[in-house]
Amino acid sequence: MAFSKGYAGKVLRVNLSNQKISVEQLNERLATLFIGGRGLGAKLLFDEVKAGVDPLSEDNKLYFLTGPLAGTTSQASSRWMVVTKSPLSGTIIRSTGGADFGHELKSTGFDLIVIEGKAEKPTTLCIRDDKVEFKDASHIWGKEIDTETIQEILRRELGDEKMQIACVGTAGENGTLFASILSARRSASRGGVGTVMGSKNLKAIAVRGTAKTEVADKKKLNEITKQIVAEAIKTPMYEGFSHLGTPGATALMHEMGMHPAKNFQIGQLDDFSGLTPDKLQQIFVKDEGCCSCFIHCGSVFHVKEGLYKGDPVVAPEYETMWSFGANLSNTDLGFIVAANKVCDDFGVDTISAGSIIAFAMELYEKGILSKADLDGIDLTWGNHQEAYRLLMKIVQRKGIGSILALGTKRAAEQIGKGAAKYAMQVKGLEIPGYELRGAKAHGLNIATSNIGASHMTGYCTHELFGVPQPIDRFSVDGKGSLTKSIQDITATYDSLVICGFPTTFGWMVPETCARLLSAATGIEEFSDVNQLIKAGERIYTIERAFNVREGFARKDDYAPERFIKEPIPNGPCKGQVFENEVLLDDYYQARGWDVKTGIPTKEKMEELGLKSAAEELKKMGKM
Amino acid sequence: MAFSKGYAGKVLRVNLSNQKISVEQLNERLATLFIGGRGLGAKLLFDEVKAGVDPLSEDNKLYFLTGPLAGTTSQASSRWMVVTKSPLSGTIIRSTGGADFGHELKSTGFDLIVIEGKAEKPTTLCIRDDKVEFKDASHIWGKEIDTETIQEILRRELGDEKMQIACVGTAGENGTLFASILSARRSASRGGVGTVMGSKNLKAIAVRGTAKTEVADKKKLNEITKQIVAEAIKTPMYEGFSHLGTPGATALMHEMGMHPAKNFQIGQLDDFSGLTPDKLQQIFVKDEGCCSCFIHCGSVFHVKEGLYKGDPVVAPEYETMWSFGANLSNTDLGFIVAANKVCDDFGVDTISAGSIIAFAMELYEKGILSKADLDGIDLTWGNHQEAYRLLMKIVQRKGIGSILALGTKRAAEQIGKGAAKYAMQVKGLEIPGYELRGAKAHGLNIATSNIGASHMTGYCTHELFGVPQPIDRFSVDGKGSLTKSIQDITATYDSLVICGFPTTFGWMVPETCARLLSAATGIEEFSDVNQLIKAGERIYTIERAFNVREGFARKDDYAPERFIKEPIPNGPCKGQVFENEVLLDDYYQARGWDVKTGIPTKEKMEELGLKSAAEELKKMGKM
Repeated sequence: MAFSKGYAGKVLRVNLSNQKISVEQLNERLATLFIGGRGLGAKLLFDEVKAGVDPLSEDNKLYFLTGPLAGTTSQASSRWMVVTKSPLSGTIIRSTGGADFGHELKSTGFDLIVIEGKAEKPTTLCIRDDKVEFKDASHIWGKEIDTETIQEILRRELGDEKMQIACVGTAGENGTLFASILSARRSASRGGVGTVMGSKNLKAIAVRGTAKTEVADKKKLNEITKQIVAEAIKTPMYEGFSHLGTPGATALMHEMGMHPAKNFQIGQLDDFSGLTPDKLQQIFVKDEGCCSCFIHCGSVFHVKEGLYKGDPVVAPEYETMWSFGANLSNTDLGFIVAANKVCDDFGVDTISAGSIIAFAMELYEKGILSKADLDGIDLTWGNHQEAYRLLMKIVQRKGIGSILALGTKRAAEQIGKGAAKYAMQVKGLEIPGYELRGAKAHGLNIATSNIGASHMTGYCTHELFGVPQPIDRFSVDGKGSLTKSIQDITATYDSLVICGFPTTFGWMVPETCARLLSAATGIEEFSDVNQLIKAGERIYTIERAFNVREGFARKDDYAPERFIKEPIPNGPCKGQVFENEVLLDDYYQARGWDVKTGIPTKEKMEELGLKSAAEELKKMGKM
Repeated sequence: MAFSKGYAGKVLRVNLSNQKISVEQLNERLATLFIGGRGLGAKLLFDEVKAGVDPLSEDNKLYFLTGPLAGTTSQASSRWMVVTKSPLSGTIIRSTGGADFGHELKSTGFDLIVIEGKAEKPTTLCIRDDKVEFKDASHIWGKEIDTETIQEILRRELGDEKMQIACVGTAGENGTLFASILSARRSASRGGVGTVMGSKNLKAIAVRGTAKTEVADKKKLNEITKQIVAEAIKTPMYEGFSHLGTPGATALMHEMGMHPAKNFQIGQLDDFSGLTPDKLQQIFVKDEGCCSCFIHCGSVFHVKEGLYKGDPVVAPEYETMWSFGANLSNTDLGFIVAANKVCDDFGVDTISAGSIIAFAMELYEKGILSKADLDGIDLTWGNHQEAYRLLMKIVQRKGIGSILALGTKRAAEQIGKGAAKYAMQVKGLEIPGYELRGAKAHGLNIATSNIGASHMTGYCTHELFGVPQPIDRFSVDGKGSLTKSIQDITATYDSLVICGFPTTFGWMVPETCARLLSAATGIEEFSDVNQLIKAGERIYTIERAFNVREGFARKDDYAPERFIKEPIPNGPCKGQVFENEVLLDDYYQARGWDVKTGIPTKEKMEELGLKSAAEELKKMGKM
């Protein structure tokens, strides 16, 4: 069977326990059904990782994936994705990173790497085209060397400046449950993908390839890409994001009352003046972009004075602006930049890290954690110096930091005294910086997302940006089917491992997706928009099946009580609550799942070509 | 002119400013007059570095030297030495290190390296035989990576596991004035040689050679060496030092009242029970030795429990046992091991580091420094947890640590309020852990040593160990000439760059030195014991001439007032003071120097073949 161009279908399987490697050819039918990236990762995880496996044991597997557009001229589509079972949520997790690693991985000739087992000692996996080596990494393990320096050290050790490296930091080594994987200063950071990598004693994967990615119809792919770029750069979205990147959206969200403060106690800060775009502009140095992307959404900021003065750094994104900003009732931009740097240096998710500090701040406010419990830290709202001290304790797993390094859900269990009420998480994953009560489809996605509280699996641009058209964000009407359709098509896009911007910009719609995919791969089915949408639903459903097999169901699709019972006290969303029950009923109906249990029906799964998975669930009594 | 075997006489000159390198042949007459190592370093520094040069400017030079026995079968004689102008004392400084770097440097075919100028950015100098490269070290600079990891990172980067590396740590980078240079866990640590290296942006020197060191009479050299070893291993000294190393001597010095406590306020600790040899034995793991040495004086210790539990480490030496032990009124061995590790990790001299903490403790006791001055540190005697916090501040140059990182002399100037009285230093270099008042020749050497308060330039084994024969240590009689003769012959031995043990053991006497040197080099003059003794005096005097040119004189040869005015209050030395004036008069007379000024006479210098140096001093009005 010959594989289509732009899709070599080559899989590198690496067993760290016995250092065996094998190269496999991807089944073309599988590739057509699950596209690549997230889809393939979900299907492989379901098939290869048994139910109930400890995410941090050698039985868990880690998939590094690119998509079928990687390495081509297509823009914003050479990202890399990690799929595994999350130690934070216990669900499937998919997390993506940018910069140049995805392009380089594709250039080795491999579309994806499967990491199995656990290395005996700290190891770097080095892949140069089809040559794979295991290198001892004991000398850089447990040393608190920042991830950027680690990458540079490895590049020099491996004697190739162009080597692209994805690595874990100190947090990935020490078992912090929300550790990330970084390449350059971009990270796959949610759900503890770095913790899984660290648990396998895998410090880094270094890739360097010389293969050129062939495409089925180069001329056509180039034409579509040119057209996309030409149209995109005319949009106001491009104007905004290509300059200050995602943090530029902070002010807009604040104005909408969608940028919550004090661990979601209030809908917006009273005084937002420290975080406005002109304040960002004052520390802005330059744009920075990923490989094969014209947007250059990254920003280099430089805090030149005050407590947090330092070197220029790539930071922060919107979520970090929020998690260390309004979330902590902090408006000191210098602190946000510095905290972001600590997170990237040590390798942790900034959303979880900031949320955990906000959680601890509220526990301090409520008297559940005392100053003594916090190792002498006076963790009042907005006290960024003390927040910085706590952050260091968390990433180094020292004192109280060792408990908080487990994430809000597990930390709350250890702390007791009703702390769980203040853990702003769904399925163990901390909630990102948009108010659930102020945008119901957004909230519904957060509550139901297969990977825990992720905004990226069903980003409702309709509600947040009025793209492609504005809708009533407070209304629950039709939000079940809207959320379903966004989640499904996002699963399709994620299987191309493209960036989130193309959809936010509105240029990535199913039709463009079909055109790009078929031009690149030549696979007939990919030109059919309905097939692509169906693929998205298939992918979303196999992920849900994975979770169901682990015991997840309707009971796990709820936002914290605060969102359901406490109306937002201030701002444009004042009075709103999150109607979780109503929304769930509507959503399961739209999905054709069992409304009572939130579990996909056998019929639905068979319709999607997931018969064997359905049978497995049935046999286990899960359906 | 053909050079003798065992003495290639090859000099590598490296200019970091313009990256020019040159290879020079050593003048044989110079080699005969100054032997090698310390002697050559002193002569070259005097000739090449002008008076008044800022030690941390690019005009200062750094000499990395081996001796004529390096790389041969001769034991304990493959050490490496650094000579430069000290930023701590402003005098000439010579500091030696062990492990395998000296042997490897010699194997490149170079006897010494002259480092000039200042690199534009952090640099590693890589020498493989005669191939010299400048490698960018920006990625490992300013990162607080421990020196052992730095060496391992560079070895892998340079692709050769056998590369020997001498490097500075964070303290050498950040300008701490008593920064050391480390190779393996051995360091050239006194007088800020690492600060000079760091000021030149030189992170490391990596050497690897394949040259075999030829000797003039191999058979004879082997015979002498065998004989030395056979006799040495029978001595009780070998018994003691080959097992627990220098820290084994701590109890003996304590019993003699020579192991002072509380910044030299008292002659010995009241309770020494935490530091006895059996306590050391409890954490002892194994011996560790340098290249080409049968003694294996190094010890690996492992603190397995308590506050300071950690991995096994090579540490501490006698001086460190004292500086972080009795000196701070501390008997927690775990703290001493941990503090030693911090010093080696960050690259600072343990004697200066501990002494500065003792100084700060006394200032705290006397009310000169408050808790607020100390950034909230409660620095009472024996409070090792607080001492540890302060040590971290010093090596990182944070808060009060930034001032204390300048050494006791400069820190006292900045602090004012009579703090200088409590700075236990001579010429800016902190005094090591032997009581000056309890051993007068020892004290006289400390007061007059060319490099500031060093015990290694005139170690009086007669007084401390009764070797070669015991003398009255409290008496001042004859101590001037005794000190002179020990200082001179030590200068000879140091020019071979041998270890201090051979003299402590009593196997290295002028006769053995002559036999070893002539067998190795075939240079006729070296077989004449009197010539070797004369060479030592020549070397000692050219060093003094260097200092005189910088403005040093009799006024600088005094111990701190405490030693002269305060009788020791307790222990076997109770009631003793240090008779500085009387001893100085006697000493200068023995040296044939001007008694009033402490400056060598023109006649003496001419007698030693230092005519041009004498003329320079004369011309400058210094004589």
